[in-house]
Amino acid sequence: MKRKGNLIVISGPSGTGKGTIVKQILEKDDNLVISVSATTRSPRTGEQNGKDYHFLNKDDFKTMIENDGLLEYAEYCDNFYGTPKSVVEKALNNGNDVILEIEVQGAQKIREKCPDSVSIFVAPPSMQELRARLKNRSTESDEVIDKRTAQAAVELKCAGDYNYIVINDRLEKCVQDVLSIINAERYKTDRMSSFIKELSQN
Amino acid sequence: MKRKGNLIVISGPSGTGKGTIVKQILEKDDNLVISVSATTRSPRTGEQNGKDYHFLNKDDFKTMIENDGLLEYAEYCDNFYGTPKSVVEKALNNGNDVILEIEVQGAQKIREKCPDSVSIFVAPPSMQELRARLKNRSTESDEVIDKRTAQAAVELKCAGDYNYIVINDRLEKCVQDVLSIINAERYKTDRMSSFIKELSQN
Repeated sequence: MKRKGNLIVISGPSGTGKGTIVKQILEKDDNLVISVSATTRSPRTGEQNGKDYHFLNKDDFKTMIENDGLLEYAEYCDNFYGTPKSVVEKALNNGNDVILEIEVQGAQKIREKCPDSVSIFVAPPSMQELRARLKNRSTESDEVIDKRTAQAAVELKCAGDYNYIVINDRLEKCVQDVLSIINAERYKTDRMSSFIKELSQN
Repeated sequence: MKRKGNLIVISGPSGTGKGTIVKQILEKDDNLVISVSATTRSPRTGEQNGKDYHFLNKDDFKTMIENDGLLEYAEYCDNFYGTPKSVVEKALNNGNDVILEIEVQGAQKIREKCPDSVSIFVAPPSMQELRARLKNRSTESDEVIDKRTAQAAVELKCAGDYNYIVINDRLEKCVQDVLSIINAERYKTDRMSSFIKELSQN
C-alpha cells in the first residue's frame, strides 16, 4: 500500500515559537520533510540553494506565477517568496508528510488551494507571555513590540479557520502534541480507504 | 479553562486485539477512563460491581431503557448489556476522555446518538492473519472460526463509517497510533474555542 503524504501547514503569530517546534518535529519523525520556499532574494552567507531556499531570478519566479506553479506567494521588500507546487507534490507522492511553516496570510491561501491540507495554529499561552517573548528575543523598540503584539491579536482571530490549535506553553509537550496530530491524520478514514479495499479483497 | 472530555469509541471485528489495545492505552494516558457497561447477567467469581460491570436486575435495566438512560443496549443470551448515559456524561464533564470498547453494531448506535464522539476502527493486517489469531486463541471448531471470519468480513464494510482506521499489525505501534488520535482530538479547533476566546480577551 503506497500512501500519499499529507500537507501539514504550521502557522501562528510571530513569537509563538513555531520555528523551534518545526525543527524538533523534523528530528523526531522520519517521515516528515519540510517544504523549501522559493525566493528572488540573494543567498546570505552559508545559505544553500535547495536547502534553505530555492534561489530564483525574478523572471523565473514570474514564469512560475504565470504557470500556476506556486501554492502561494507574497512580495516583501521588493523580493518574492513562495511555495513551489512541484516540490511539494513530489514529496507527497513519495509518501512523505510535508511541513509548511508559513505566516497566517499564506496559510489562508494554502487552505483555499489545498482543502486536504492539515492546518495547525500555534498559539501563545497568553498575550502577556507573547509580549514577554517578543521582548526577550528582540532588540527592537517597545513601539515595534507593541506593533507585533497588536498584529498577533489580529492573527488570533484567524485561529478558528485552522483544523487544530495547539498552545506553546511547555515546548516539549507542544512538540508531542503536534507530532500526535500529524500521526493521527495518517489514520483518518478517507486516507485509509485503499487499505480497507485491499483487506476486503483478500 | 475546564475542558469537556471526548467520547472515544473503539471497535472492530473479534480477534483484532482491541481489548489489549484498550488495556494499554488506559495505562499510558492518565486522562482516560473506561466506560463500565451495565448488565443483567449475574456477576462471575471475582467480578466487582461498578468495576467490571454495573450489575442490575431486569426491572431496573428496563426502567433505564424507558427513561432513555442508555447510549446503546443489546440483548444476548437472555441478558441485557448497555452503556449508561449518566456515568459517561459525568466523566466527560469531569474533563476525562471516556473509552468505550464496543462491538460494531453498538458503535453504530453511539455514532448516531453522540455525533461528537470519536470513533476508531481496529482492523487486522489481513484476513489470513485474523483467521490465524482466532484459531490461536480459541478452542472453537473450524466451523465457528469460519463463521467469525465471515462476520469480520461483514464488519469491515462498516470501517468507512468511523473517523479513524488503525491497523493492529505491531501492537506497540498500534497503541501509539491510538494514543496519538486521542491526543490530537483534544486540539481540534472546535474543542479549543473557549481557549481562543479567553486569549483574545486578555
